[in-house]
Amino acid sequence: MTGGALSDWLQQSLDRASDQPLYRQLRDLLLQAVMQGRLPAGGKMPSSRLLARELGIARNTVTEVYETLVAEGCLHGRGGSGTFVADLSADRIQAPAVSAQVEAEAAPALSTRGKLLRAGAGFAPNQWGAFMPGVPDVSEFPTRAWSRLLSRHWRKPAPERMTYAPPGGLPELRAAIAGHLRDARSLNCAPEQVIITTGSHQSVDLAARMLLDPGECVWLEDPCYWGLRSGLQSLDLDLRAVAVDGDGLNCASAEALPAPRMIIVTPSHQYPLGAVMSLARRQTLLERARRWGAFIVEDDYDSEFRYGTRPIACLQGLDRGGRVIYVGSFSKTLFPGLRIGYLVAPPALAAALADGSAELYREGQQLTQAVLADFIREGFLSAHIRRMRGLYGLRRQILREAIEREFGGALTASGDNAGLHLILRLPEGADDRRISAQALEAGIATRPLSRYYADAEKAPAGLLLGYACVKEAMIGPAFSRLAEILRRSI
Amino acid sequence: MTGGALSDWLQQSLDRASDQPLYRQLRDLLLQAVMQGRLPAGGKMPSSRLLARELGIARNTVTEVYETLVAEGCLHGRGGSGTFVADLSADRIQAPAVSAQVEAEAAPALSTRGKLLRAGAGFAPNQWGAFMPGVPDVSEFPTRAWSRLLSRHWRKPAPERMTYAPPGGLPELRAAIAGHLRDARSLNCAPEQVIITTGSHQSVDLAARMLLDPGECVWLEDPCYWGLRSGLQSLDLDLRAVAVDGDGLNCASAEALPAPRMIIVTPSHQYPLGAVMSLARRQTLLERARRWGAFIVEDDYDSEFRYGTRPIACLQGLDRGGRVIYVGSFSKTLFPGLRIGYLVAPPALAAALADGSAELYREGQQLTQAVLADFIREGFLSAHIRRMRGLYGLRRQILREAIEREFGGALTASGDNAGLHLILRLPEGADDRRISAQALEAGIATRPLSRYYADAEKAPAGLLLGYACVKEAMIGPAFSRLAEILRRSI
Repeated sequence: MTGGALSDWLQQSLDRASDQPLYRQLRDLLLQAVMQGRLPAGGKMPSSRLLARELGIARNTVTEVYETLVAEGCLHGRGGSGTFVADLSADRIQAPAVSAQVEAEAAPALSTRGKLLRAGAGFAPNQWGAFMPGVPDVSEFPTRAWSRLLSRHWRKPAPERMTYAPPGGLPELRAAIAGHLRDARSLNCAPEQVIITTGSHQSVDLAARMLLDPGECVWLEDPCYWGLRSGLQSLDLDLRAVAVDGDGLNCASAEALPAPRMIIVTPSHQYPLGAVMSLARRQTLLERARRWGAFIVEDDYDSEFRYGTRPIACLQGLDRGGRVIYVGSFSKTLFPGLRIGYLVAPPALAAALADGSAELYREGQQLTQAVLADFIREGFLSAHIRRMRGLYGLRRQILREAIEREFGGALTASGDNAGLHLILRLPEGADDRRISAQALEAGIATRPLSRYYADAEKAPAGLLLGYACVKEAMIGPAFSRLAEILRRSI
Repeated sequence: MTGGALSDWLQQSLDRASDQPLYRQLRDLLLQAVMQGRLPAGGKMPSSRLLARELGIARNTVTEVYETLVAEGCLHGRGGSGTFVADLSADRIQAPAVSAQVEAEAAPALSTRGKLLRAGAGFAPNQWGAFMPGVPDVSEFPTRAWSRLLSRHWRKPAPERMTYAPPGGLPELRAAIAGHLRDARSLNCAPEQVIITTGSHQSVDLAARMLLDPGECVWLEDPCYWGLRSGLQSLDLDLRAVAVDGDGLNCASAEALPAPRMIIVTPSHQYPLGAVMSLARRQTLLERARRWGAFIVEDDYDSEFRYGTRPIACLQGLDRGGRVIYVGSFSKTLFPGLRIGYLVAPPALAAALADGSAELYREGQQLTQAVLADFIREGFLSAHIRRMRGLYGLRRQILREAIEREFGGALTASGDNAGLHLILRLPEGADDRRISAQALEAGIATRPLSRYYADAEKAPAGLLLGYACVKEAMIGPAFSRLAEILRRSI
């Protein structure tokens, strides 16, 4: 195609009525001409001035298109001597063109671990209302106080606060959390041991990636939080389920299993059953972990909300071997959407875990972290926990009474001396997944207990009922609706 | 120990002058007595009323301690008949006690992948100032507009916005990003294809965990962003480095490597060298990926900041096979600490990646996401990008002039037709890591180019100089300080 033929072809092809700007049309047409070989390699392009005049468009437009095509390697400029068509033959695709449809069929799919993860996914479509477990009453959160702190920190933020966070997170927040854990949980830790994360998922991910190699064995409680299994599975670890009883995880019952390199437990309030790990079991666990050279991850999930008894001393405080990683978050005490959690590392591992966190996740959110630090230091956190403890205790009582009223002793609640949910045990043979699905259709969120077991077939039937995010007046009516479904199904 | 002996011993042991509350002291003493066998299993404890009177403390305190010890499994109550010492002999630890020091020596350490990750960690202590690459000028961010939107959303947040985010993130933000990408990058995508993440690290982690199995082969550009290698390494993948030239990654040069299952590229502005992948190379890459059944991750890192040429069409728009995962973030256009990024999934994989993201990371931050959605919709994002493009273009020019002034043609800048940094090439044999360390001591942050190569020994020497987060007046003086160090070292 000569210069004249080119401008004729362009003149016919440009659509001046189109929504697409002329720049875009011209670029696409020239690209097409080069790719299809209409413009031979090495050929000189008409000058931008000439082409602009022939097409009756602004010269700037042509210049920009030429520059873009040069940047894309389709044209090249030789000093001041003009613009030339690049030689693309070496790179040109030899294979026949395939239709979009054929390609779509061959599109690659999820990996095996991706499929597994998705099959086990348990995200509930409804994250609020009766009886969603694990969700606090966020409508009671002191948004005015929070908002005031937000404005204060956003008034004139230091640039350092708007870039990436230093390894381990904002120092002020690490100090505030260390103080809070000392007061509320008798934890013995320096601010440097506190690593800020986005929650328990990231805390466990960090511990697993920094401390475990592929194929190593991890013991999980059975039952346990399903989200834990999903994340670890995708890190290629050998997960083993160890049954819990009324005293928590029992090492003695797991003697046939491979020795673990990590044991993940919820000693202060077993999730989801609610058992408290006895002190003797704690000592045994620490002793066995020492023998195996294993780490213990202590997930102190919802220990702030206890009804009746005082908090139990944590494993972290009993550890003399630098093997306990203590994990907690503000998802239950403040609000889940905040996404701030932490782990407390043994002193010898703290710097490594902080570095690992910066390298793996490259977090920021320092302004939010600064707001939380003030919120803790100014006493809002403990005041909110105290207030919510009373409120949740009341709601728990109302739900217990509703259960008693509807079922007498036929169905009983358990596992609720702490936390935000109780377990309603169902008779053997009841299909808790089906019941939970039916309840959801009727607008009542629950979680089937069997979902939390490694082997759902052998699991006892039950429902997790969260009472924290249901207003008092709604508890009775909502439970009555659930009771109707239960009576039809069991 | 009889009841009387017990109260005598407690009376002597309690320290009323101590900072520790009596509750805590009493609990610890009784715990000790049970664990050491001073109180025999099955023995009846004195009633709380009696013990309280003998010790002269509040009965409530004793009751609470008893309840805690019951919860911990050290005591048990038998209906109304009193409180008894539990039998812990079965659980009691047989092994001899080990001192803290011995245990500390045996403390478990980092995994192999953890050590690797830490050895490669590249987090800079200084995240702001001359010449930190990859950091935008956050002091120019319109904090007033942002703060106003924050207040608006925090005034009366819906509870749903304070709990976990739905899979894929806040729908309003997914829609706003799809719109922005359509206008700014000619991307062709529906809101459902946009998955909100916390940034490129999480986007790549998600794609890798959902789409790749352990041991599968991933091609990375050589050089590339080091943070990419660290994260993937810890997922147990077979990483291969493929050299880039002036046209970007060249599949033809990699024929000896195992066929990849994923190829991660920065076609619009190769990171860190700055090459633009030619259209021919893009077509070849897509064709080869089709043949191998491989995914392509297109990291469109800093394509918004181009100086001179228009943005280049992206791979995602050329893809007919549903194999391109497009990755971007607001770290460079707004501020790194925001931690909001996204990936654009092929339609067939969008739901799976959204589910995977909810399951793996359980994100929230919906109020921040809502603020960003408004910020985009109300035009603040594009206005800010336009303004910063002009400002960064100016700073780039000033830095180029400073280099010219100090070194004439002896050292040259390259790779800066887009982005926030340039590459200052150093003579062969120069030790760029040492020079970078010396510069840091003098208060000048840079990154050694060799750091970005898979094999640092064979890498060319150079420095990455970020000009975006340095005020115009500071650029010349800061570069003069750097020039002094350079003249001494090369």
